[in-house]
Amino acid sequence: MGKDDVKLLSMWASPFCMRVKVALAEKEVAYEEILENDLMGGKTELLIQSNPVHKQVPVLLHDDKPVVESTNILTYIDEVWPAKPLLPTCAYGKSRARFWADYIDRKVFPAGRNIWTAKEDGQVESARKEFLDILMYLDGTLGDKDYFNGDNFGFVDILLIGLTSWFPAFEKYGGFKVEDHYPKLAAWITRSYARKTVSESLTNPEKITNFVGMMRQMYGIE
Amino acid sequence: MGKDDVKLLSMWASPFCMRVKVALAEKEVAYEEILENDLMGGKTELLIQSNPVHKQVPVLLHDDKPVVESTNILTYIDEVWPAKPLLPTCAYGKSRARFWADYIDRKVFPAGRNIWTAKEDGQVESARKEFLDILMYLDGTLGDKDYFNGDNFGFVDILLIGLTSWFPAFEKYGGFKVEDHYPKLAAWITRSYARKTVSESLTNPEKITNFVGMMRQMYGIE
Repeated sequence: MGKDDVKLLSMWASPFCMRVKVALAEKEVAYEEILENDLMGGKTELLIQSNPVHKQVPVLLHDDKPVVESTNILTYIDEVWPAKPLLPTCAYGKSRARFWADYIDRKVFPAGRNIWTAKEDGQVESARKEFLDILMYLDGTLGDKDYFNGDNFGFVDILLIGLTSWFPAFEKYGGFKVEDHYPKLAAWITRSYARKTVSESLTNPEKITNFVGMMRQMYGIE
Repeated sequence: MGKDDVKLLSMWASPFCMRVKVALAEKEVAYEEILENDLMGGKTELLIQSNPVHKQVPVLLHDDKPVVESTNILTYIDEVWPAKPLLPTCAYGKSRARFWADYIDRKVFPAGRNIWTAKEDGQVESARKEFLDILMYLDGTLGDKDYFNGDNFGFVDILLIGLTSWFPAFEKYGGFKVEDHYPKLAAWITRSYARKTVSESLTNPEKITNFVGMMRQMYGIE
């Protein structure tokens, strides 16, 4: 794999970038990380050229060809570096993984944002309820398995574990603990963080919580 | 393919169901269509059991196993019946197709809904502008090609053509014509409708426009 030229346009607080870093680590693909440093929305020319429609990280540049959107990038990585597959091998298993990927992408992060941007107690309460209702389905589909697809850490695990770096911030501003509601899901988080590919790819949640606190001040929430 | 048991839980006005019908027709897969008849939200027990999270059509039942979400279903169909591939064959081409699929899924139908649910002229104008800005990118990526991936009608074409059954309603209530702004995209619609797999799978747009008019009355918009 040494001959591949792989770069990742990234931002340290983005849970979507963290997903891609975990996937590349799982596949043992070497890459250069190019950080977007302006958190206040300034974008590099390279980012704008590579993702002209959304102008967002992450962008994977593989031999200078841009692949964008984190879930799409994960599918691409799994196709280009097929050893240790992330997706199940059968078509039906794949369709189930894509279903949960879509569920996670549409629901989890927006619901979390509703928590930390809530200004009044009533808003916090309804945002917390919404978030916990979403996790209920994820906890249910995980069940007693070690990982979402069974014994192997894979596609759905990577998509969700990136987002969990923000969970302590959601917990702090929502006034709840995931483990009090969903101990199996909390154990899955701990189990996943024990993997070097995860712990070395994810930003320290404490740093994220401080970042969220800073954004709340900036938005006049507190 | 005769030994496959394929059923589609469907609703005649759903552009997402139409996509699946086009894909099955392109693949020459025989199936039984089971229509949800209650347009006002009553759901059959079969639908709720097959898609307990979203409780929405379309659902593809393949040998009684449910696959849900139209874009996911299309990917599944392409994997299970690989002859005449809908997705490009190379990983990079696939990633581009999935990128536009996601763009279409997130943007086009919600923007169209903003048009026909707008109550005041100012709202209509901004919804029209939003919708036309979205189509601009699709027109740009289509360019001078016959279809989105080149010469062959494929994945992105099917995802978008389903939605075009609603375009005349968007045009009527938005006060514009797609062909006045994007003649290449309009020609692509005409070219696609000339395919039997499309014309026989899509609900007549006039029927959709009447349906939208009925919903506008129901919602007190006119």
